[in-house]
Amino acid sequence: MHDDPATDILDATYRALCRHGYADLTLRDVAAEATRSKASIHYHYDDRETLFAALLDHLYDEYTDRLDAADGQTPIEHIRALFDASVAGDRHGRDQAFCLAMLEVSAQAPYDADVRTQLARFEDALSEHVRDAVAAGVATGEFADTVDPDAAADALVTAAVGVHARSTAIDGPRDRLAEATIDYAEAHLTADDATEAVH
Amino acid sequence: MHDDPATDILDATYRALCRHGYADLTLRDVAAEATRSKASIHYHYDDRETLFAALLDHLYDEYTDRLDAADGQTPIEHIRALFDASVAGDRHGRDQAFCLAMLEVSAQAPYDADVRTQLARFEDALSEHVRDAVAAGVATGEFADTVDPDAAADALVTAAVGVHARSTAIDGPRDRLAEATIDYAEAHLTADDATEAVH
Repeated sequence: MHDDPATDILDATYRALCRHGYADLTLRDVAAEATRSKASIHYHYDDRETLFAALLDHLYDEYTDRLDAADGQTPIEHIRALFDASVAGDRHGRDQAFCLAMLEVSAQAPYDADVRTQLARFEDALSEHVRDAVAAGVATGEFADTVDPDAAADALVTAAVGVHARSTAIDGPRDRLAEATIDYAEAHLTADDATEAVH
Repeated sequence: MHDDPATDILDATYRALCRHGYADLTLRDVAAEATRSKASIHYHYDDRETLFAALLDHLYDEYTDRLDAADGQTPIEHIRALFDASVAGDRHGRDQAFCLAMLEVSAQAPYDADVRTQLARFEDALSEHVRDAVAAGVATGEFADTVDPDAAADALVTAAVGVHARSTAIDGPRDRLAEATIDYAEAHLTADDATEAVH
């Protein structure tokens, strides 16, 4: 439990989401998870929508911190680290139950402009980081100068979303899918004469 | 309307799914859409689950027909055609409303082994077609002999799922995403000396 009640309630919301799923989540569930009264939840968050938006903001900040922290000796290792930070949920303490809840949220997104905007921010953040890493690789000569950083970022972010969806919805092998995608990226991006150019 | 009532009911189920979404779909909705009695729906399909499973079977058959029909002068064109058949929903008369309903179904899949098995079949079918096309390209020398057809199929099917998810959930540009992914595939797969090898 945090000293800050608002953050404490967000943590409880995360746990309640994993336990109950998104569709069935009520403020009563959150109150029970936080061992607080419903009134104290209402004091900090007007309603379910406000609370959920605050949770997504909080998760977004954590996500961009992870992306900022992702690093590598080379541009391709940097991209691998970004991909890991993005898709390898389990390694970052996000459990499968949370992924399932977020899949439910995605299914609601088409009907809810606010949720859609919030989810798009996650993809935009990943896209920006990947684009910068690709551009850096082109600049150093590790990647072929024919590679378009915007198009490569589009393809890689799309692949990351696919890894999420396949490994969550039908229980696909997350690590193998992520690995296949990164190997693919590496083969595509790497300049044939990179060894000469770098050394 | 078909002469075959069972198929007629499946068509009505498809339209009802687009209109009402998956979570709220009732046999009463299907009956209204089919302008039949609820009893006549029950005569052909025991319950909502049986009807929905039959619809997925029907859609699977249509899907594999489209994949079988996808063709190209060269292996990369064949892969492009498979990708088109798979992700470019609108061009095949599947509207956005249906994609939304299927996203809802995906979100249910983790909780429902039957649905999960049915959805996995769609991905397996695409994967098999892509793998064969990649293997054919390696055999003819159009693709580099270092390309592993299984890994390439994994990456491409994952990308196709990502295109679906991004363009449906957050209304991303389906064509641009598909295009970026295919260009990516082409650059990765194509052997550097393919021109000489083929000609």
